[in-house]
Amino acid sequence: MNLLENIRVVLVEPIFGGNVGSVCRAMNNNGITDLAIVNPRPEFDWDDARKLSCNAKEQLEARKEYATLADAVAGCTVVAGTSARTGFYRDTAYSPKEFAPIGLESAQDQKIALVFGREDKGLFNEELALCTHIIQIPSSELYTSLNLSHAVYVCCYEMFSAAGIFQPSEETAQEADSAFRERMFAVWREMMIETEFTHDQKLDHMMMGLRRIFTRGKLTVPDCKILMGLAKQTLWVTNQWRNEQEKKNH
Amino acid sequence: MNLLENIRVVLVEPIFGGNVGSVCRAMNNNGITDLAIVNPRPEFDWDDARKLSCNAKEQLEARKEYATLADAVAGCTVVAGTSARTGFYRDTAYSPKEFAPIGLESAQDQKIALVFGREDKGLFNEELALCTHIIQIPSSELYTSLNLSHAVYVCCYEMFSAAGIFQPSEETAQEADSAFRERMFAVWREMMIETEFTHDQKLDHMMMGLRRIFTRGKLTVPDCKILMGLAKQTLWVTNQWRNEQEKKNH
Repeated sequence: MNLLENIRVVLVEPIFGGNVGSVCRAMNNNGITDLAIVNPRPEFDWDDARKLSCNAKEQLEARKEYATLADAVAGCTVVAGTSARTGFYRDTAYSPKEFAPIGLESAQDQKIALVFGREDKGLFNEELALCTHIIQIPSSELYTSLNLSHAVYVCCYEMFSAAGIFQPSEETAQEADSAFRERMFAVWREMMIETEFTHDQKLDHMMMGLRRIFTRGKLTVPDCKILMGLAKQTLWVTNQWRNEQEKKNH
Repeated sequence: MNLLENIRVVLVEPIFGGNVGSVCRAMNNNGITDLAIVNPRPEFDWDDARKLSCNAKEQLEARKEYATLADAVAGCTVVAGTSARTGFYRDTAYSPKEFAPIGLESAQDQKIALVFGREDKGLFNEELALCTHIIQIPSSELYTSLNLSHAVYVCCYEMFSAAGIFQPSEETAQEADSAFRERMFAVWREMMIETEFTHDQKLDHMMMGLRRIFTRGKLTVPDCKILMGLAKQTLWVTNQWRNEQEKKNH
């Protein structure tokens, strides 16, 4: 049972088709697929919606339509309305991050709704009245007006993140062990001497610097092989050069 | 000194004007204002960009343009590139949430960059090579292609959130759904009228207050039954009282 299937995104009287299309992508990116639209306007631009939904067209076509918000959320326990404004009974608000674990807990065995208002006027008081939670999206005081699909994106993103499904890519290569690292550093040391890069006195200091640079993150076996190969090649070139010089001198 | 002023958003060869306009809003919403565009195409639709930027037009006009990504990030210490793909040297990636504290630490006294690729092809390998960090945005395996402005939004949002203050949250129970809650509220409304508790003008205000009180925490089915019973009983008493009064008056 996938938690995210229990999350319904409800758009109340959206104005712009493009926004609704972008909303479909935002939902799909975050594994949320249940879209409800309340009272779509007769002049609504479905072509624009389809265009902006890109590969999330299926979801746009699978939308449910309702005459009222009450109908759209009737089967939902938690109903979270988004609001940019504070004030009259909007004082107890949650950030999307704060709301995510609350919503997910209910979504384990019940349907929940994330409700978004009109692009220009948001949700009306009688619509907020149906909500059990108010979500206020963090924004700069200087510019609080969010694009509808951005608002949906960030709420879905926090639900998806809190569900703990996604893990960023991790290094799969084996980390080099000390013995292998030290063989590599030994070649670098030799290279620094042979190329006459450092004085004897400075050699240890330079080596310590290199060790810090190379081991600041995890140094893998392939990384070590590249570094070893580079130093060995440099030693080879250096020896060629020395031989040439000796020939000249004789 | 505002940390966020040190964050530069770099768009590499964006295709759609509307996306760049939406990016301006996404940045503004999160207090980030330094926008750089690498090699804008001659046919780029600036009108569309202006239209979608809404009240963030100023920022669109203040953008800087560069011929190459190397030029755009030349003054930046940390350079974080976004990538949807994994593979060759993209293995060690950070989520936007993981990257935020790392980026902010450097942004305290140095300029840093968040780099976003083309809508269709992302960043090329030679562009990723300029990056010190790779950011991979969490997304469903089934649908990994993000809208450009959504990608910018979520990265800016995480930086903005990490720069701010954190707040905790609450508890558990078995919940009533919206339909059941509304039946209960309808009885309370009737009760308030019949008991002559409120004037007509104040009724909606009082109902909103009650809704907030009762749905602030999780309202369970038993809670709802108690509240419903209480209101029904009050209505019964009120009717008894009215009947008594009518008897007296006759």
